[in-house]
Amino acid sequence: MRYELYYWPEIQGRGEFVRLALEEAGADYVDVARKRGRKAVEAFFARPRERHPPYAPPALKAGSRVIGQTANILFYLGARHGLAPKDQAGALWAHQLQLTIADMVVHIHDTHHPVSGWIYYEEQKPAALRRTADFWRYRMPKFMGYFERVIAKSGGPYLLGRRLSYVDLSLFQIIEGLRYAFPRRMKRFEKRMPSVIALHDLVIKRPRIVAYLKSERRIPFSQWGIYRYFKELDQ
Amino acid sequence: MRYELYYWPEIQGRGEFVRLALEEAGADYVDVARKRGRKAVEAFFARPRERHPPYAPPALKAGSRVIGQTANILFYLGARHGLAPKDQAGALWAHQLQLTIADMVVHIHDTHHPVSGWIYYEEQKPAALRRTADFWRYRMPKFMGYFERVIAKSGGPYLLGRRLSYVDLSLFQIIEGLRYAFPRRMKRFEKRMPSVIALHDLVIKRPRIVAYLKSERRIPFSQWGIYRYFKELDQ
Repeated sequence: MRYELYYWPEIQGRGEFVRLALEEAGADYVDVARKRGRKAVEAFFARPRERHPPYAPPALKAGSRVIGQTANILFYLGARHGLAPKDQAGALWAHQLQLTIADMVVHIHDTHHPVSGWIYYEEQKPAALRRTADFWRYRMPKFMGYFERVIAKSGGPYLLGRRLSYVDLSLFQIIEGLRYAFPRRMKRFEKRMPSVIALHDLVIKRPRIVAYLKSERRIPFSQWGIYRYFKELDQ
Repeated sequence: MRYELYYWPEIQGRGEFVRLALEEAGADYVDVARKRGRKAVEAFFARPRERHPPYAPPALKAGSRVIGQTANILFYLGARHGLAPKDQAGALWAHQLQLTIADMVVHIHDTHHPVSGWIYYEEQKPAALRRTADFWRYRMPKFMGYFERVIAKSGGPYLLGRRLSYVDLSLFQIIEGLRYAFPRRMKRFEKRMPSVIALHDLVIKRPRIVAYLKSERRIPFSQWGIYRYFKELDQ
């Protein structure tokens, strides 16, 4: 079965968590908008004939099924491609970690657009400075301290122990994004999260991930999407 | 089995989505902090001996298992108590809708605290006014238009059709909260979401929900938590 991924063609965004899972699984998929343009995504969401219309990109078409919500798509893919535990308790635990990553994504995005996604960064710069300060003072230590603890409990090197799961791919992506958006802050902070960085360093060496990151299928980071670089936010 | 719910005792917050599911299921549960104080929750999260430590409240203890993340807890309870479809596709579809509700909860909260949760409302009032305007201009029509469409597709009166699911309880709670926080705006807006209001009106008449809302177990809305009333945000 060839999956169809419906997501914006210009950004990594939330779609990237799905792309990484598909790539690591060696799954057959089409990134629809990269082939046919963003209009294909707009049309898909504007006229959903599906019984289960998704709310917003990303969505995955798997045969006759359409699945929305990033973490939900990963739940589905994880079970099908050995990227999550098979037992219910283990699958829900992986998913729980993914939902915590989803929460983190909102906070990362809101460092540069706290007030509204409909106004320019420049119009909300004081709020962005304040939000960014609080993110690094409170959120980052709490989130990363948590993931450090989870790896310690599992025995590592991955979040669930010795086997890679889709959650590791997502955490890898978070680190990549934070390094793009906050290179100076990350340089200082990374020593406080040695196990997460070790996990990142394992993921980036996996053959399929190496091939993906080198390919044209990987969209570069940019000033759109979740992670954006603004010098003043990076101190 | 008696469940233990670990959530803050002073607010409905995200714990309320879990409480409503437990109540509708007629499940045996203890709202731990309401019995033993908020310190019981703090202690639970500060020293998690569990193999799967949750990141933040709410968490549900079910026998030897500890489950975190609101939508994940509901996924678990839905399967056990007939509050979600039994087949995998149906269960994931219900969960997908719940994740969209979770996204909405963040946007509702951020109407009054867009800049940071660590500063007072009064210090971020201009940003709150802007965020609230955008919420009602863009988010509410999109979210509620979506849920209207989902009900139309399922045939109603509930989101998944003729049978109530935990997602309906959560959408009911969203309406209750919006009416508390934005009474004037809701009065004008509700005519644009007739199916969602009809769903709300069915949920509020269910015997176990009636009993719960009258009981002391239901914490009143207040100026803490997700939904807060500020006259200037309500136009």
